[in-house]
Amino acid sequence: MPTNYTETEQQFLEFLKEIQSYNEAIDVMYWDLRTKAPKKGAKQRSETIGMLSHKVHQMSTSEKMKGFINELKGNTQNEIIHKSVLECEKEYERNAKIPDEEFKKYVVLQSEAETVWEEAREKADFEMFRPYLEQLVEYNIKFAEYWGYEENRYDALLDMFEPGVTVKMLDEVFPALRDSLTPLIEKVQQSEHKPDTSRILVPFAKEKQEAFSLDILKEMGYDFDAGRLDETVHPFMIPLNRNDTRVTTRYDEQDFRMAVFGTIHEGGHALYEQNLSEALTGTPLATGTSNGIHESQSLFWETYVARSKAFWNCYFDTLKAYAPESIGTLSVEQFYRAVNEVKPSFIRIEADEMTYPLHIMVRYELEKGLINQEIDVKDLPKLWNDKMEEYLGIRPENNKEGVLQDVHWAGGSFGYFPSYALGYMYGAQFFYAMNKEFNVQDAIQNGELYRIKSWLTENIHQYGKLKEPLEILRDVTGEDLNADYLVRYLEDKYKDIYQW
Amino acid sequence: MPTNYTETEQQFLEFLKEIQSYNEAIDVMYWDLRTKAPKKGAKQRSETIGMLSHKVHQMSTSEKMKGFINELKGNTQNEIIHKSVLECEKEYERNAKIPDEEFKKYVVLQSEAETVWEEAREKADFEMFRPYLEQLVEYNIKFAEYWGYEENRYDALLDMFEPGVTVKMLDEVFPALRDSLTPLIEKVQQSEHKPDTSRILVPFAKEKQEAFSLDILKEMGYDFDAGRLDETVHPFMIPLNRNDTRVTTRYDEQDFRMAVFGTIHEGGHALYEQNLSEALTGTPLATGTSNGIHESQSLFWETYVARSKAFWNCYFDTLKAYAPESIGTLSVEQFYRAVNEVKPSFIRIEADEMTYPLHIMVRYELEKGLINQEIDVKDLPKLWNDKMEEYLGIRPENNKEGVLQDVHWAGGSFGYFPSYALGYMYGAQFFYAMNKEFNVQDAIQNGELYRIKSWLTENIHQYGKLKEPLEILRDVTGEDLNADYLVRYLEDKYKDIYQW
Repeated sequence: MPTNYTETEQQFLEFLKEIQSYNEAIDVMYWDLRTKAPKKGAKQRSETIGMLSHKVHQMSTSEKMKGFINELKGNTQNEIIHKSVLECEKEYERNAKIPDEEFKKYVVLQSEAETVWEEAREKADFEMFRPYLEQLVEYNIKFAEYWGYEENRYDALLDMFEPGVTVKMLDEVFPALRDSLTPLIEKVQQSEHKPDTSRILVPFAKEKQEAFSLDILKEMGYDFDAGRLDETVHPFMIPLNRNDTRVTTRYDEQDFRMAVFGTIHEGGHALYEQNLSEALTGTPLATGTSNGIHESQSLFWETYVARSKAFWNCYFDTLKAYAPESIGTLSVEQFYRAVNEVKPSFIRIEADEMTYPLHIMVRYELEKGLINQEIDVKDLPKLWNDKMEEYLGIRPENNKEGVLQDVHWAGGSFGYFPSYALGYMYGAQFFYAMNKEFNVQDAIQNGELYRIKSWLTENIHQYGKLKEPLEILRDVTGEDLNADYLVRYLEDKYKDIYQW
Repeated sequence: MPTNYTETEQQFLEFLKEIQSYNEAIDVMYWDLRTKAPKKGAKQRSETIGMLSHKVHQMSTSEKMKGFINELKGNTQNEIIHKSVLECEKEYERNAKIPDEEFKKYVVLQSEAETVWEEAREKADFEMFRPYLEQLVEYNIKFAEYWGYEENRYDALLDMFEPGVTVKMLDEVFPALRDSLTPLIEKVQQSEHKPDTSRILVPFAKEKQEAFSLDILKEMGYDFDAGRLDETVHPFMIPLNRNDTRVTTRYDEQDFRMAVFGTIHEGGHALYEQNLSEALTGTPLATGTSNGIHESQSLFWETYVARSKAFWNCYFDTLKAYAPESIGTLSVEQFYRAVNEVKPSFIRIEADEMTYPLHIMVRYELEKGLINQEIDVKDLPKLWNDKMEEYLGIRPENNKEGVLQDVHWAGGSFGYFPSYALGYMYGAQFFYAMNKEFNVQDAIQNGELYRIKSWLTENIHQYGKLKEPLEILRDVTGEDLNADYLVRYLEDKYKDIYQW
């Protein structure tokens, strides 16, 4: 890559750096608000974050930005500049196509809707939330029309979260995946060798959970000189930059799984951001390439690594030492089986790895229908419950454990949910690709987690947004999206656990 | 106060709020950098803070700001707007008078000088730091000339930290104070009843020091819903806003005084900011009125309250419970005397309350001489040591414990030091004024610290910058600056401790 920039390139990089500075300030304040900030300061802090976010929006859609795009597009020798221009153009076009007044109203609506949703969810009262959701759907339909699409209106929304993935692809891969999962879930349910989870839902001191979480983050290669672990209510990972990428977690003293698997999950996200190429710093390319690929990294560590038998063969003694009286009384086999219980349940974020993709499919079918005006908002609660019954064999008793459980729609995010299932599938594909180079289970069992991190960095992390999600997938696996690997992984694993 | 603003007033307030938002973002990042941030992220964070600080500087000196000042000055019915305009004008004029190029060079010099100073101090090598200090003095002379003054060039610098206070005033009050302190210090030194500090320099677990510090902050009325206590290297208080004002401290397990008195000191600063009138929020008036008045608040709590016998009569049992094996073996009398040892020493920040003002006078004499070109930088080390010998009777053996000990000059702050001594004197004046309304020692002994906080809030805190420092002093005490109260306080207290 050339190190000499033209004057315009230099100015463009300076401008990007300024945007990045605002974003960093916003992210520090957000992190602070979610982990440390005293409660009385929250309102003012939110306003400050709003003010700076507006500034970033203004800069991303400014005449100055437009000028850089026009001047540099197709007119730079530098790949990072070139891809950054394309990224900025995408953002610019997306924003420029929405009339200013509409965008402002939408921002207010989002914020109101989230507040109403919180209360509606608590009361399991869909009618309270319905008028907001109707408007949110309407706006998203309009936006999709502004942005344009080739085949399906929903593609315009999908593109925000997973560029390159389309309804056409999902409509092939999801039904196939479902057809494979359904018989597996039936086998699990018919099995007479069910794990006993009561033995792991035992007292586990918070400080001990934290100590184990820190141990494992270190083992994963998470760099504590470029990050930290804090407590919060709804855990998240936040990348201020590659040298400061923080994870948060939540402790439940009666259920260590929340903190341990949660920390590993967020740690997987964090490794992606910590190991971006330094050359991308300050540009919009310096982050994970998509929600789906990001999720493939967190899930890789959470499930393919940390829910494996090899992992606990290696680390169970460490865990036991932190809770000798409770967890310490189990055999590694009992423990491994218990943390891998499969059981259809209502709440997505509590779902096991086998039923999880079905939760996503329910949401995908419904939001695709809403955006294409084939479904009415008023019919959602019933349709949700019908789908849950059809896909998972259980029917929610109220809307709190049904259609109102997720914040995504209240926040205006339509097209986001598929990323979660894509992450599972990508992750399985990466897992099998990695296994061609070395025996992953052996590496885990030997405590050589650094080999996994190195492979992921070399093949995925370093590129940031230099490569598109499906480009990464093809470069790494030689294949397009393929659910077979996930199915193969689940079948191999669970036939052992449930002994069918 | 009117609640209806004119359109210009409204726009002015919006503009101020935007500046305040940037400052809040800067402060959160600064706090984070000093307490929580992983080390690899520090460089990028500093750049981000620099970028936003530049933004604030630009806004404060913008044509837009100038427009507001011109339009609103002498043309508003609202007192807060009026005083805010004057505050903004002062800042505008101060900045506008320095040529842009010079200011930029000065900022770079400051930053370089601090780095060089750190190394020079470590090596006790004044010659290494000398060229930077010479330039810093030169710049400050130039700036003082740009800004203008009536009698003494140093007044232009003093005005930045303590508006209203002049060389003329200090040249009256400081020698008088010194003349009173010298015989007291002699009496202390001749006393045969010296406290035994070895009994308090004993092991004290960090968590226990923290627990006691939190107890006392609560007793003082520090609002933890609008603040928090964290650990850092060089303790500070930072007011993000009145609803989020944070204190930091440092723990030494062999010397609890650092954390306990340090936390109370910073807590005193914090009470000032937490108890500003809400009406000032978002304006430049929403902070302490000057360095000296701010220091009077921190010192009030640290010395007049927390080093008093009444305080330990009330709280010594609480402290003992946290260190029963060590501190717990002392009587309250032994303890009280030990934390009030008077002993001339080289390092200002470790000085006792009687010798502290002399440390300040040394610095004041020297920097006044530098700015008035009566002293050459090259002669500073010798002059420093001479003055120390003359004022305190001890001569530093090297420049690390002499002229190189403080960061202030390296950071370009000339005229700042007097604030510390002013804070002591103001504090004593407030203490005697408070005593006219209720018996302060009795209140302390009864654990009624809230009465002290209420009095300070009513008389000082609420006004922020609505009143000038000497205006506050006169309104509260009916007098101008008067060192007699400090002398009376010290004499009364120490003749008891040293039994002369």
